[in-house]
Amino acid sequence: DSIIVKSFLDPIITSLRKAQQGNERPKDPKLWPYFQDGLRRIDYVLTYHVQKPQSTRKLSAKSCLCFKFRREQSSPPAHEDPELAAQEQRLDYHEDDQRLRREEFEENLREMGLEMEREEGNKIPGVGFLKIHAPWEVLCREAEFMKLKMPTFKVFVLKVNMFVQKVTATLQPKVGENRVENEKYLSYPFSREKQHLFDLSDRNSFFDSKTRSSIVSTNPFRKAFCLPSQGQFKTKCHLSPDLITKGPDVVLILSLQILCEEWASYSIFYKYQPIGLIRKYFGEKVGLYFAWLGVYTQMLIPAAIVGVIVFLYGCVTVEDNIPSMEVCDERNNITMCPICDRVCSYWKLVTACGTARASHLFDNAATVFFAIFMALWGQQLCSTFMFTQICALILHFCFNSPHTHPRSNAGLFKKLIILAKALNLPFLFGSSAVTGFEMRNYTLTKLLANLSPILKEPKLTCRDRMPAYMTIIVMMVFLICVTLAIVFGVVLYRVSIMTALHMSSTPSFRTNIRATVKTTAAIINLIIIIIMDEVYGAIARWLTIMEVPKTDKSFEERLIFKTFILKFANAFTPIVYLAFFRGRIIGRPGKYIYVMGSYRMEECAHAGCLMELCIQLCITMLGKQLIQNNLFEIGVPKLKKMLRQRKIDKKHQEELDKTLHRHEKDHFLGPFVGLNPEYMEMIIQFGMVTLFVASFPLAPLFALLNNIIEIRLDAKKFVTELRRPIAVRAKDIGIWYTLLRGLSKVAVIVNAFVISFTSDFIPRLVYQYMYSPDGTLHGFVNHTLSYFNVSHFQPGTEPTESMHLGYKVEVCRYKDYRDPPWSDTPYEFSRQFWAILAARLAFVIVFQNVVMLMSDFVDWLIPDIPKDISIQIHNERNLIVELFMKQEQGKKYRNTIGDPSPQPLRSRPSSQA
Amino acid sequence: DSIIVKSFLDPIITSLRKAQQGNERPKDPKLWPYFQDGLRRIDYVLTYHVQKPQSTRKLSAKSCLCFKFRREQSSPPAHEDPELAAQEQRLDYHEDDQRLRREEFEENLREMGLEMEREEGNKIPGVGFLKIHAPWEVLCREAEFMKLKMPTFKVFVLKVNMFVQKVTATLQPKVGENRVENEKYLSYPFSREKQHLFDLSDRNSFFDSKTRSSIVSTNPFRKAFCLPSQGQFKTKCHLSPDLITKGPDVVLILSLQILCEEWASYSIFYKYQPIGLIRKYFGEKVGLYFAWLGVYTQMLIPAAIVGVIVFLYGCVTVEDNIPSMEVCDERNNITMCPICDRVCSYWKLVTACGTARASHLFDNAATVFFAIFMALWGQQLCSTFMFTQICALILHFCFNSPHTHPRSNAGLFKKLIILAKALNLPFLFGSSAVTGFEMRNYTLTKLLANLSPILKEPKLTCRDRMPAYMTIIVMMVFLICVTLAIVFGVVLYRVSIMTALHMSSTPSFRTNIRATVKTTAAIINLIIIIIMDEVYGAIARWLTIMEVPKTDKSFEERLIFKTFILKFANAFTPIVYLAFFRGRIIGRPGKYIYVMGSYRMEECAHAGCLMELCIQLCITMLGKQLIQNNLFEIGVPKLKKMLRQRKIDKKHQEELDKTLHRHEKDHFLGPFVGLNPEYMEMIIQFGMVTLFVASFPLAPLFALLNNIIEIRLDAKKFVTELRRPIAVRAKDIGIWYTLLRGLSKVAVIVNAFVISFTSDFIPRLVYQYMYSPDGTLHGFVNHTLSYFNVSHFQPGTEPTESMHLGYKVEVCRYKDYRDPPWSDTPYEFSRQFWAILAARLAFVIVFQNVVMLMSDFVDWLIPDIPKDISIQIHNERNLIVELFMKQEQGKKYRNTIGDPSPQPLRSRPSSQA
Repeated sequence: DSIIVKSFLDPIITSLRKAQQGNERPKDPKLWPYFQDGLRRIDYVLTYHVQKPQSTRKLSAKSCLCFKFRREQSSPPAHEDPELAAQEQRLDYHEDDQRLRREEFEENLREMGLEMEREEGNKIPGVGFLKIHAPWEVLCREAEFMKLKMPTFKVFVLKVNMFVQKVTATLQPKVGENRVENEKYLSYPFSREKQHLFDLSDRNSFFDSKTRSSIVSTNPFRKAFCLPSQGQFKTKCHLSPDLITKGPDVVLILSLQILCEEWASYSIFYKYQPIGLIRKYFGEKVGLYFAWLGVYTQMLIPAAIVGVIVFLYGCVTVEDNIPSMEVCDERNNITMCPICDRVCSYWKLVTACGTARASHLFDNAATVFFAIFMALWGQQLCSTFMFTQICALILHFCFNSPHTHPRSNAGLFKKLIILAKALNLPFLFGSSAVTGFEMRNYTLTKLLANLSPILKEPKLTCRDRMPAYMTIIVMMVFLICVTLAIVFGVVLYRVSIMTALHMSSTPSFRTNIRATVKTTAAIINLIIIIIMDEVYGAIARWLTIMEVPKTDKSFEERLIFKTFILKFANAFTPIVYLAFFRGRIIGRPGKYIYVMGSYRMEECAHAGCLMELCIQLCITMLGKQLIQNNLFEIGVPKLKKMLRQRKIDKKHQEELDKTLHRHEKDHFLGPFVGLNPEYMEMIIQFGMVTLFVASFPLAPLFALLNNIIEIRLDAKKFVTELRRPIAVRAKDIGIWYTLLRGLSKVAVIVNAFVISFTSDFIPRLVYQYMYSPDGTLHGFVNHTLSYFNVSHFQPGTEPTESMHLGYKVEVCRYKDYRDPPWSDTPYEFSRQFWAILAARLAFVIVFQNVVMLMSDFVDWLIPDIPKDISIQIHNERNLIVELFMKQEQGKKYRNTIGDPSPQPLRSRPSSQA
Repeated sequence: DSIIVKSFLDPIITSLRKAQQGNERPKDPKLWPYFQDGLRRIDYVLTYHVQKPQSTRKLSAKSCLCFKFRREQSSPPAHEDPELAAQEQRLDYHEDDQRLRREEFEENLREMGLEMEREEGNKIPGVGFLKIHAPWEVLCREAEFMKLKMPTFKVFVLKVNMFVQKVTATLQPKVGENRVENEKYLSYPFSREKQHLFDLSDRNSFFDSKTRSSIVSTNPFRKAFCLPSQGQFKTKCHLSPDLITKGPDVVLILSLQILCEEWASYSIFYKYQPIGLIRKYFGEKVGLYFAWLGVYTQMLIPAAIVGVIVFLYGCVTVEDNIPSMEVCDERNNITMCPICDRVCSYWKLVTACGTARASHLFDNAATVFFAIFMALWGQQLCSTFMFTQICALILHFCFNSPHTHPRSNAGLFKKLIILAKALNLPFLFGSSAVTGFEMRNYTLTKLLANLSPILKEPKLTCRDRMPAYMTIIVMMVFLICVTLAIVFGVVLYRVSIMTALHMSSTPSFRTNIRATVKTTAAIINLIIIIIMDEVYGAIARWLTIMEVPKTDKSFEERLIFKTFILKFANAFTPIVYLAFFRGRIIGRPGKYIYVMGSYRMEECAHAGCLMELCIQLCITMLGKQLIQNNLFEIGVPKLKKMLRQRKIDKKHQEELDKTLHRHEKDHFLGPFVGLNPEYMEMIIQFGMVTLFVASFPLAPLFALLNNIIEIRLDAKKFVTELRRPIAVRAKDIGIWYTLLRGLSKVAVIVNAFVISFTSDFIPRLVYQYMYSPDGTLHGFVNHTLSYFNVSHFQPGTEPTESMHLGYKVEVCRYKDYRDPPWSDTPYEFSRQFWAILAARLAFVIVFQNVVMLMSDFVDWLIPDIPKDISIQIHNERNLIVELFMKQEQGKKYRNTIGDPSPQPLRSRPSSQA
């Protein structure tokens, strides 16, 4: 893809660079988004459907309809048109109605001072374009209103650690060739009264295209909703609001080129991303996503390294591990009780040797330290440190607007409802051009389709909402039950298949039974997870639409929250079952617990369930990532693109390619559907990495490898396959931060339980320090096994082939801490059981509180805003003070000598300590 | 005091009200703080010492020295003066030097546009006053720079719940008689370019006196430090910076009157505080303290009510409590092992009946729910809810400037050091008038006294700081060890006295021994705590000065942090010992643990140590509050005032009282020493209320009663006894919030441990559900007592009067879970012990995580900013949008018809939904 883009861009760039040097501005409308007069830039393009391209309409549409503060002059053609239309096509009422509403909408835009040019059915049949230009006055007004921070004359020098810069030089993307990296313009909120602070010599490039398009997109919005008391609310029309402004000027074509070369390419996976440029091209919200993804990936590196070391430590020490040596020692002639009723027989512990050795790879002393490390990593680095610190860094150095808030549109939806009721116009919102954002359109349209029964009420009361809330709660509980049922189903599958295999198979095949069943079950689980993920996503959206949230922000947050809960439950229920329930509710020999009639609950292998948990995690992580990345993120978009292109006749295709304008070509790209799926994928991965990391130290490594690909994959998608999204200003990553913090809190307690209950760490410690005669682990295996008198088997459950091992078994052993048959209280939990339970619980308390304390301590050590940034901010503030003081003195001076001409303050770069 | 103020104020107020109605402005400088010309207001008064009031100086000083942008004109007298002085008093070099520096300082103020009048040794000998006036231009410039939010023309109506308003009407302080409560001026950051938005008809009252004085106090500051690169740093002189502007204008005299009547009076303890007025008079920082204190007190009401209910529940159910009934039942003939060696004998369990019944008052089922309630209360309501929610509320409705930040002075101190080095002037900072805040002065002065050896270094490196840090760590550890040693000392006192009393006393006296010793020990503890509190406060300050923090803010934070740790350890170590260690490290009969040779560690009474913990808490809380309130907060200031007044001759006193100007009278008031002691007292109380509330449910009630008095006490102090502090803008309560959050987090885990380990709640539960034959608590007491064979006593420790009870004892009982002498493992911890330990630990985990989860849930339910406030903020923003849109249209209109005159926008109150 990048090659295609390149070959397309290359000749343009060459001509552009020339033009730029000569300070000329090419005005060929084929390549450049200017109005047909070649003077006014296109800042925003709206498209709409034209059903029947007729000759009359085509003509009237093709004539340039440009107005500038001339409401009176623009009225006549608007009046003419409907008359003409009414005569010609009375039947096509819908089309007419839409056109009328479009015109009303345009009228409102014009009132706001925007200028427009219409272009209908020119080359692409059935699609009309409305090109919008924002004149200088409008830009200034809106910029002041939005408190946009713009660069002033004042240049200052950033203090950069030269050593660090040199070391990381090869990792930095090559963004600007001759830009001095550590010089920066002091920026200040734009204000028309303080124009002398800014460099306005080139008005065309003062606001970049991203800013211009976001100014235009918010403009009609305010007009429509912020002043409802003045009764000016009538800006509806059927313009589908896809923004098509990919690459509209020299700088942007260059940016796109650089992004292709220095970002959307797998070959430079080791480099930092050009965050500043991404932000400049796609806006703060997308920039923040990639910044976050980059930092998260970077943070995974130490975690992956430590994880691999822990794994290697396990590999190296497997030979010296006393418990597994004892299991594998033929001399310890331990006879174990059968693992299923009747058909299974007694077995020798030594046959579990392989499992015991494999378990040691993941369950050794280093695991505990790794769990603590990862809990701290998760809680601390990945939440507070990473997000506030890095956001501060990125916002300050690249984003330049740390303290501006996106304009709130709270209460918007309430007003919509009230107005819809007042005007008795339920169809009023059929379209969504007023909003400008795809996400929002979808929401509004769907919401309103849902709303019509409630539109009689001016405000939704608790009573109106109750049915929806009840449905949501019931549905959520139901869905989680479904998830549990699925897990239980898989368990039954495992149990029944295992029993069936035991009954019929040859002895040589039996040894492979466990592994086979485990692996197939894990794959079934994976497939179910992936299917249910999609189902749950759809259900969450449906539930949220039913809830009718008041604002768009709350819609998005609630949707994310619901989707997260469902997908999270879906992904983690099987893992939680494996970690905490499997092998714990089996009863004891002679008194087993049965489900579904005669199936005994499954036991763990000798060395705990950690091994199986590990397999499940490994398959889920790898499988999910591979399938989601390859199938959903690469395959499906390609398919969609093919389908889209099919609609247009093949023969026209190539011809069009040459003659089409930029915005017409962009029309065929996929729409931008928001960042939520990307974030969701990452957060589930984060959960995998932190929640059960104690049982699978390689998880960070897998995540790291996945993310390195993921970044470039997303980059390619954004650069080559999607329309350019409207730049949305964002201060942080919003609700995702809350979810991440929550996850990392939960991770601490989950890891504590995994170590103390799933692994054998605590029993080993307790044995070593309380029961071992010589302070070593010798005898540990024997200590963990209780005695069972085979005469106590319930009738009908004793093994049929009791002589399988070649001798008569009188006492067999099972893994539990219970009193032996010859004590006063046979088969009761022994004193050791309670002591180990107390130790396990104590470990959980200590672990949780120590990690929390350490996390708070690290929090306290690492300031929210890094020191050099805060010094930088302070310096900048000082510079602004200085600037204003100079200005004051200048004024005083002018007042004294009577010179009224305002002089812009030009100062040379002054270095700052 | 309030009567004195009243009688003094009454005639003035009457004349004032008249004057106000007639729109006249009285200009008698005796009453009104105007310059001698009667035109310019005094906004700020500085005082300094004049050692020898000579006739010549008096004359030159009395002549009005006012300058206005006339640096040239002001120079000659400044040059004359030193010559004169040099001729007359060469010996008094120091005095001269100070005078020179004063003049330099004044010169700088003048350059900033301030106007001044000097008044030396007029009525109070040895004190000179420098009165400062800020002209309109300076006020505007600074207000714009500080982005002060000022009221615009636009009035809007707050939506107030009328029902709530009526119900709480009697609780509201009567602040403004004819002010419409729910009307509010829309405010907007002041800007000279947007003057048409503001009502500037009365320039004298547009900025109130609080704003004016804070503008003046920050003015020279910026001049001095923000532009060091321009080399204008020379604004030093020896003016002590006490601000004396109590009551400088009509509004303020009225405010003071209202504050006296509606705030600083015990009779209206049930009313809300007039926070808006407090903030207006004392500034945001003080306002926030009282708002916080008020809300905290209010939040204590439900806690106190629930606490009393829990206590009453204990009282009511004491008769039905099976364990205490069993203890008191004569028929259960249980013989207990002796509680001390040799001299004590066996005793009957029935004698512990009283203690058992008393323990039930504090240790019953309701305690657990109360602990959960209080943990939630502490963590949730008292931190997140209370502080963010209430701050948002207060800031929005009263403080009016939610988004302004106080100007940062980070790096200030570093610059001071660098400059001091550059100018080779270590004495440069001997004074501190530049700063304007008492706190800061003190800091700077002390810091610099400490700094002189390091001044050779331009910047303090890690190596320079290392000795200080080491000292601090060592000192802190040492002090905490001292605290531990003191506690241990008290324990030894108790043990030895107890043993001594046992040996010598008559039998009838013995029963009272325990109570006596407990109470005296608690009182000794209390006295030690109060003494050490003062010592630790001084040490913390000394340590912080040694640390040389870079900025003032960090100085304050570090000081608070250190003081908090020391005082907290001091107050809570004895309590922690009682709760968790006492009675747990005693060994068992036959194998006791001895300290200091032959003293056995103290045991708890039969029903656990909860009772003793309760007594200790009660005495500490009551005693600390009574002594600190009465002695330190009322007594010591009175004493100081008496001492201050003594210095002035008695005969002059009354005469002066009549003739003195307002600022001269205020000179005799106490200086404002910051809010830290007040906060510290409250946070230790908060710790008492939340940390061990499980053991003492009446703590919130005591705290509530104390705080009701505390509010009015502090109010009286601020209104009548202290100079008016400079208004400091504050966004929140700073580090105190961090400490409170930390405390409430610790409270959760401490309460969990108190319930599970100190109280008998878990053993009772475990007995009831695991061991009880009939599911009730019958037999519980017997179950908790282990058996001891008296023949196993170590030689020499068996009781001498073994026949004391009238029969020969072979087996005695003691409170522990150990195997009986006749088992295989005599005196080992029994299976019950481990089971109960596991249950206790499980309870801790469950409690901690449930509370944390509930707390997060409540967090999620209650938004940071209450809904009506956020709607209000949104409405306000909309109004501003509207205002600007109108303005835009107005501009457009004017441009069209060519009318250049800017018209202020006056709009009538428009109601907002």
